[in-house]
Amino acid sequence: MNDHEQFTVVPDGGLTTPAGFRAGGLHCGLKKVERYDLGAVVCEVPAAAAAVYTLNAFQAAPLKVTRESLAAGGKLQAVVVNSGNANACTGKQGEEDARTMRAAAAQAFGVEEHLVGVASTGVIGELLPMDKLGAGIARLPERVKLDGSDDFCQAILTTDLVQKMICVKVTVDGRPVYIAGAAKGSGMIHPNMATMLGFITTDANIDADPLQKLLSGVTDSTFNMITVDGDTSTNDMVVAMASGLSGSAKLAPGHPDWEAFAAGFRHVSEYLAKAIARDGEGATKLVEVQVNGAASIEAARAIAKTIVGSSLVKSACFGADANWGRIIAAAGRAGQPINTETVDIRIGDISVLEQSRPVKFDEERAAEYLKGDLVGIHVDLHMGTHQATAWGCDLTYDYVRINAAYRT
Amino acid sequence: MNDHEQFTVVPDGGLTTPAGFRAGGLHCGLKKVERYDLGAVVCEVPAAAAAVYTLNAFQAAPLKVTRESLAAGGKLQAVVVNSGNANACTGKQGEEDARTMRAAAAQAFGVEEHLVGVASTGVIGELLPMDKLGAGIARLPERVKLDGSDDFCQAILTTDLVQKMICVKVTVDGRPVYIAGAAKGSGMIHPNMATMLGFITTDANIDADPLQKLLSGVTDSTFNMITVDGDTSTNDMVVAMASGLSGSAKLAPGHPDWEAFAAGFRHVSEYLAKAIARDGEGATKLVEVQVNGAASIEAARAIAKTIVGSSLVKSACFGADANWGRIIAAAGRAGQPINTETVDIRIGDISVLEQSRPVKFDEERAAEYLKGDLVGIHVDLHMGTHQATAWGCDLTYDYVRINAAYRT
Repeated sequence: MNDHEQFTVVPDGGLTTPAGFRAGGLHCGLKKVERYDLGAVVCEVPAAAAAVYTLNAFQAAPLKVTRESLAAGGKLQAVVVNSGNANACTGKQGEEDARTMRAAAAQAFGVEEHLVGVASTGVIGELLPMDKLGAGIARLPERVKLDGSDDFCQAILTTDLVQKMICVKVTVDGRPVYIAGAAKGSGMIHPNMATMLGFITTDANIDADPLQKLLSGVTDSTFNMITVDGDTSTNDMVVAMASGLSGSAKLAPGHPDWEAFAAGFRHVSEYLAKAIARDGEGATKLVEVQVNGAASIEAARAIAKTIVGSSLVKSACFGADANWGRIIAAAGRAGQPINTETVDIRIGDISVLEQSRPVKFDEERAAEYLKGDLVGIHVDLHMGTHQATAWGCDLTYDYVRINAAYRT
Repeated sequence: MNDHEQFTVVPDGGLTTPAGFRAGGLHCGLKKVERYDLGAVVCEVPAAAAAVYTLNAFQAAPLKVTRESLAAGGKLQAVVVNSGNANACTGKQGEEDARTMRAAAAQAFGVEEHLVGVASTGVIGELLPMDKLGAGIARLPERVKLDGSDDFCQAILTTDLVQKMICVKVTVDGRPVYIAGAAKGSGMIHPNMATMLGFITTDANIDADPLQKLLSGVTDSTFNMITVDGDTSTNDMVVAMASGLSGSAKLAPGHPDWEAFAAGFRHVSEYLAKAIARDGEGATKLVEVQVNGAASIEAARAIAKTIVGSSLVKSACFGADANWGRIIAAAGRAGQPINTETVDIRIGDISVLEQSRPVKFDEERAAEYLKGDLVGIHVDLHMGTHQATAWGCDLTYDYVRINAAYRT
């Protein structure tokens, strides 16, 4: 059974499609322009929850506080997010502010503090304006509603150009179970304004432990396989919440519908990851690098990420140049075992290298393909059976423009 | 004694200033435009020699052949270099061509084959036009002369805008000893046209073994501490040749003038490394990142290189934006131990972070400093006594332009 038989995408579905969830957003004054900068996802009941966090040593204050909440019992009932200020590198005061933010949300939504998660994205090194934030949080309950998914998505955007949301339906014990996700990008790091944040809701009946294992595993092959500029934010976080209100029996590995649920969950994560890559700062196209025949999964992932992260490969994709030399050279510096005599490379369906030997190909057809908005690069190492896919975007004048003149 | 008392820079000195060396270049037709594309450095006598090579798994054919020559007896008498074609990813035929190139040079200069090194830079995946190359090599002896350093430098350039050469004088046993170097960039990889190549000549009386140890050690803190775009060429190589004709006694660690010689050798390497970084594709300035107070030399180097290689830090340098959040975030993702409470950051002499707390600074003065052609970033981790410096350049529109439209 392939993935597409295991789940269906719900047109116009969003974070609040899974039973029990509401969401919303508003403008509280953290962004100077009149755009939403505060949002929340709230569940009717304490939801089994899981999260993955940035590996950056400078983990921002809200991540520490969310981690504490999850450690208390593996459940969340509300997640509150602000954009415009990352509350990162803000010391003890920043941690205190993140706790105050959590307490204010707990009071506003009438839930216990350890059931609240918090996230922030925006300027590094500035303290949160707690008066504005507190007033905004007090107004959140009236804004949080069944049709508030779009408002929430707007509230978490920074340099993103488009909102990123998806919902899929799977069948568990003969009943529909929904899995939805929303995310923001638009780079692995943009400390002054951006960060990757992901929020996944489901009405599946699942405990925190299998949910965490699923999220961690899926993140390794989705959110952790994208790169816009090779940097890693201090604030990256993906949170998953399961309300259990679908009415099915407990889901866990071994349940006959587990694979379908996991496939749907994976699709939501992969969709969001690709959407973040495609909407990377300045990007004109999504670049997908698939590595096959690697000696290990680590090698496949490292080589795929090195290729998709190479500034030269990214520039060539922008310029529609079928420059396979840059692809093979990036593969060669990934620090992984490679048989230098057995590499195949395809760009789209155009073979450019076979058994490490150049293939004569139609340059014009290749340039035409590379001008599209999705570029697929396929590398077969012929060393084993492992494969991985990584996603990124092209490197453009706009990336330089956006990041050269950012704070000013 | 500091470095500057141990050696002096020789104005207008070049590769042929050390006794015994001649150099030259000519156009043999590998480049389409009428620019030099073939050069050689030749010594009167077999010179003690050492080399360091790219770590890329796809090591180009000329590197293998040069390695074989050095393995035969640790001596080289001639090094022949072409630009315009990298002879990389060219399989068995490429290796055969590199050997033919070596044999042709050996015949032209009347030396044994194992005394010849070869290097190539240019397009990947195309076979060398051996007829043009062979005819060019036959003409090289008449072009190789005492005042041929500039011609040689021209012959090895690709996208480089300026030639990179230096000569220093040290005193050994009361006699002058010269150390000279020439290099090309202008990125860690530009598989279609560029590569880092370095050539160092000296008339010091030194054996291959201590010369190799010195070159390897110095490379770790000079050539290996620069990055233009994070990529690593298949063709990178630095070759050092010592004629021994200065007339001094054997130099080796323990000799009273060894430290002076090593300091001069290091200065030549560092000068060339910085010149390559400053002339990186599209660069408008040299960026120097110094990390102090690291727990280990590995940590200091990894953090310095991660900061100088960050696309966001590079973009901010281009935009003259004193964006310390990007600096600290890059430090945090280097995979090295960091105390997140004790980091100081200076941009030039402007303190922007102390003990991980933002410092109010004069943004205008910082922007003014960042508009200069040398940007110094100083990070003190307060975790130990180790330090490292890395060099790079800013990320500019021109980098994207050059690399988006390269082969066409």
